[in-house]
Formats: sequence, structure tokens, C-alpha cells
Amino acid sequence: MYIDEQNPHGGDIYTHRGCLDFSANINPFGMPAAVRAAAESAVAQSVAYPDPACRALAEKIALYEGVPRRMILCGNGAAELIYAFAYALPKEKPVLLICPAFCEYAAACSAADLPFAQYFLKRENGFRADADLLSADFAAYGAVMLASPNNPTGVSIDLSLLEEMAKRGVHLFCDMCFDDLTDTPRREEVSRLLLRYPNLVVLKAFTKSFAMPGLRLGYAMCADGEFLCRMSQKTQGWNVSLPAQAAGVAALSCGDWLCDTVRVISAERRRIAESLQAMGLAVYASETDFLLVYAKCDLYSRLLARGILVRDCANYPGLGKGFYRIAVRLPGENDRLLSVMKEVLS
Amino acid sequence: MYIDEQNPHGGDIYTHRGCLDFSANINPFGMPAAVRAAAESAVAQSVAYPDPACRALAEKIALYEGVPRRMILCGNGAAELIYAFAYALPKEKPVLLICPAFCEYAAACSAADLPFAQYFLKRENGFRADADLLSADFAAYGAVMLASPNNPTGVSIDLSLLEEMAKRGVHLFCDMCFDDLTDTPRREEVSRLLLRYPNLVVLKAFTKSFAMPGLRLGYAMCADGEFLCRMSQKTQGWNVSLPAQAAGVAALSCGDWLCDTVRVISAERRRIAESLQAMGLAVYASETDFLLVYAKCDLYSRLLARGILVRDCANYPGLGKGFYRIAVRLPGENDRLLSVMKEVLS
Repeated sequence: MYIDEQNPHGGDIYTHRGCLDFSANINPFGMPAAVRAAAESAVAQSVAYPDPACRALAEKIALYEGVPRRMILCGNGAAELIYAFAYALPKEKPVLLICPAFCEYAAACSAADLPFAQYFLKRENGFRADADLLSADFAAYGAVMLASPNNPTGVSIDLSLLEEMAKRGVHLFCDMCFDDLTDTPRREEVSRLLLRYPNLVVLKAFTKSFAMPGLRLGYAMCADGEFLCRMSQKTQGWNVSLPAQAAGVAALSCGDWLCDTVRVISAERRRIAESLQAMGLAVYASETDFLLVYAKCDLYSRLLARGILVRDCANYPGLGKGFYRIAVRLPGENDRLLSVMKEVLS
Repeated sequence: MYIDEQNPHGGDIYTHRGCLDFSANINPFGMPAAVRAAAESAVAQSVAYPDPACRALAEKIALYEGVPRRMILCGNGAAELIYAFAYALPKEKPVLLICPAFCEYAAACSAADLPFAQYFLKRENGFRADADLLSADFAAYGAVMLASPNNPTGVSIDLSLLEEMAKRGVHLFCDMCFDDLTDTPRREEVSRLLLRYPNLVVLKAFTKSFAMPGLRLGYAMCADGEFLCRMSQKTQGWNVSLPAQAAGVAALSCGDWLCDTVRVISAERRRIAESLQAMGLAVYASETDFLLVYAKCDLYSRLLARGILVRDCANYPGLGKGFYRIAVRLPGENDRLLSVMKEVLS
């Protein structure tokens, strides 16, 4: 990012040093020790170029996701693959974004000179997608981009609804970077859908689940090898660093680590949601490691003044002023959040 | 890179395991210990997102290059910035590539749907650019892309000739990733040119000089902040990993390390060049850490059969069959190369 640009994202601890960061939604248990050790060892090997095809890593991911290795394309974080997807699309038609949405989808469309339209999930439905979505004229769009669980709402889409959309034949991009942080990750059903619908691209990342945003590692899955190849050719050949590749391989050898952490995260999410509701905030039905809330006061500034950073969602089309995204952190940190929250809301 | 794609580059030690690699042209002294330590420490900090604006790193680079910080844009290796440059160009005009050239320039133009034309440096001039280059109709091109020292020839361009090109007002992209590995790096003159010609973009990398290709770190310099911002917006916001940023900061604190290594590399380059010439090969006048040679036999296969990997340059437009790029390595390794070379050439 250029130095004069405004950072529209959460997690900007470089501007707000010393804050307790509830703005970035990554696994609060931090990086598994084995992942850290693997990335550290890979630094010494980084006198060589990384394997451009990420062969060892793609092999591991294929096993984990239950898809053939040739359905996988790795990227420098999931964000790079959002851009690669946009660049790989035909230029003629606009892209339909299901909003509120992660702002990189629109940024990637703009980068690729693609116009985009927005379908707004309804607040009165708790931002849950329903059959109304199918009334869109899919033939008019070059692609549809959405997320499940969605960011910043935390709400998932029913896979039967996703399948209905896939049946329409449009390029369907589903960002599932937060799916592995839900109680019931849907890898099996997703692999079935991917194999059946080559127009479906599913995005995943190690960033959130294994708490390694600084290393940059994500992947896209798609049964259409030609399209994946086209995505790949939109970026340089050596996009995934050696430490990231090694960290990914180690992460997928961590056994039950992820499930064990998700159990705690889910319990904490429920506890925070109940407490915040009791304090009078509107809390949406997130299934993952963050919560979208609505407050009538300026929660962002009030919390920041007390050393807590949350994500102000005012700049999300479809949300606006009053919405905030709050990460689920470790129990003690969440206690601190709730006690400060009580202070600022009373 | 997608798993079914062909890797057109050197340095593919993942396919040719166990070879002595003379195909990738990186500093043979390896990564400085301080760089390695900094990258390793940064792994533990990678539970946070990297600073998208790479502020601490850009500060260091600015001091090193003698330009203001706002003239710097960091990338996931120099390769990412080649693509960002191509994507940032206006779509109307073709790009002129000065050939033989690093194949990523053409790949990036193709990715950005830009047509390109090729100007071929002449073999009989030892692939050195001369005033004939100025006869090109610069107004017809959206940009000119070249490298100095050029890869794979190792030949530099006279900065007065570069300045004449810059005067024409065309977007001028000069890849100087190998300049710091020459006897007389031209940072001072380049900073003067950059400040005078906002249409000039200069590309640099840590990859080669500090032997860290696996970490991915490069930067572009340009006085036109709007153009740099446009380049930045063509890629995701968090493109440079935390270990890469930390490694870059450490590299620029290494004092005379780079100069000291270049002294040995230069002496070895001269020694190898003389020896290979004595064996009857045509050797071009490289100023950096690799040599382009021409041989009548299939040097690639003959050396590979003896465990030595060189870069077959047959797929470079403007070169073709018989050209090979050979890295300069450490004295003992170069001895081994020369003795095997004697064997295969006799």
C-alpha cells in the first residue's frame, strides 16, 4: 500500500500502538508452536526461490479439503487471490457483490476496471441471505462475489442457496476464510459442490484460523483448471514465500489444535453476545470469531480512548454509522472488553 | 503459479534436486546473519497483520537510495511490482520491451492485456544499448521497459542514454535489481534522474543482493506519487509479509557487507569469464553476478548430467539456442564449474 493511501481495514496496530486489538478477527490462540517453528526454519532456506507451484503445500491442502491437488491455487494471502479472480474475469459484464462485504472485493473489481453492482442483505433479516437473492438476473453479471461466514456480519449462507446460485452458471466466488472457525466447518459439502460446479471458486486462508496474517497465505479452489491457470497468470510466479509455504504445511499437520481452539472461541462468542445484548446493543448472529453489533453511541472513539481498538464499520456499504465489528479474543481479554464496554455504555 | 504451468525461469531446484545451482543469480555469500535473525524474529510477530504501508522499511530504503520516502513503493518481490506497473499503464498503447529481457515483463504486459513490441539489442554490439535506441518512436508507446544491468546479459545502459529516453516523456521502467551487485552502483545518479523525471520508475530488490529470494521483497521508486498510488491500488493492501519487511530493514543496516561481497564476486566473474573464453566460449561483458555465454554444444544437458544447473536462455526472444546464463558463485564452487566445463567442452 502506498504511504499516502488511507488504510480502510481493521488491525492497524501500527497507527494505534499499544491498544488491545479487537479490530482484527484472527484466532486469539495465536500461531501454533509447530507453525512458528516451521516458518522460522524456512527463513534459513530462503536463500533459494520458493517453489512457484507450491507443490508440497498444495498436496497437504488437497488432503485437508478433500479435492484433487490440481483444484488448488495458493496465494500471498487470500487477498491476492481476490484480485487474481477479478483480473481473470471477462471484462464485458459487471460483478455483483453481496453486501455488506469485505471491501477488497470492490477494490479488486476497480483494480481490474470491472464495474460492480451491489445486492444488499437486509438488516431486518439479520443480514442472512435468503431466496430473494435468486431473483437477481445472473446472466447480466460476469461474476457474483460473496462470503460465508460473511465479514463483517459473521452470518453464513445456506449451502443449498449457494448451490442454487451455482446452478445459474455464473462465475461464483465464495470467500470461506472464516468457515474453519465455525462450530461445523463445511469442507465435505463444499468439496462436493466444487466438483459439481466448475464455475464455483472457493477462497480459504491460513491467516485467520492459524493466526498468521503476517506471513500471508491463502488458497483458491476450483474444478476449472483453465480458470485457475488464468488466475495464476494474472500474478507473478513466485507469489508465496518460503516461510508461508512451510507454515501452511505445518498448520495442516496440527491435528486437533484448530478444533480445540474453536470450541473455546464459540463459547466465548456466545458469552460476549449475551453480555452485549444485556447491555442494550443489537448483536447479529455470527457463527465465527467476531461479532457485528449496532450501537447508538460512538463506540469506536469511546473504546479507543480506553485502549481498545474495534472495527468501525461505518464505511461498509449496506451498514453505515453505528455498526462495529468486535473480535472474539481469549477469556481474560474478553472480560476486559466487557467491563470497559459496560463503562462506556452507562 | 498453477501446478500445470511450465516454469520458464532458472532456479528450479524443486525439479532438479541436489544440483549445484548456477541458474539463479543471487549473492553467493547467502543471507547475512542479521537479516536471517530479523526475519526469524518477525515470524513470532506475524500473528499481527504487516504494516500495509511498510513505513519503517520505506524509511530505511529512502535513506539508502537518497530519495524521499514518498517515492517508494514496496512489493512482494520485485516481480509483483512489474505486474503492478503493467496494470497501472493506460491501455491504449503498446509497451516497448528492450530485448533480450527478463520474461516477466512480457508476462506482465499479457496479464494486463497490453500489447507489446520488442526492440532487439544487437549481438554484434555485445547486447549493449546505443544511440540507435533513440530512433524508436517513443510517442507510439505507453511505456518502455528495460533492465540495467540487463538480465540475462549483465550489460548496463549508460545513464546518459537512459536520461535521453526519459526526456521523451514516455513511462520509462528501468529494472536495476542487479545494480547493487556491480563494482560501481549508481544510486546517486539514479536518485538525481528520478527527481528530475517523474515518468521514470526504477525497480530494485533485496532478492539478489541479500540472497533472500524465498522471503520476497522488492521496491519501486518514482517521483510521481499519483502513479505509485495507482500501482499500489492494482494489488492487495498487505502484499509485503512481516518477515520480509523485517529482513529488509536489517539488510540496510548491514554496513559494508554488500560491498565486501561484491568485491569477491567481481573478481570471480572476471576469473570465470577469462577461463571460459580460454575454453572457446563467447562470453559477454557482464558487470554483475552472472555471465551470459554462447556455446555451440548443448551445455545445459551436458552440465546437468554432471550435477550442475545453468540457465538455458534458448527461450529468450533475441537470444535463442546456444545462449546460457551462468551465476557467479563462491570460489570453490566456481572451481568445480570450471573443471566440469573443461570436461564437457573437450
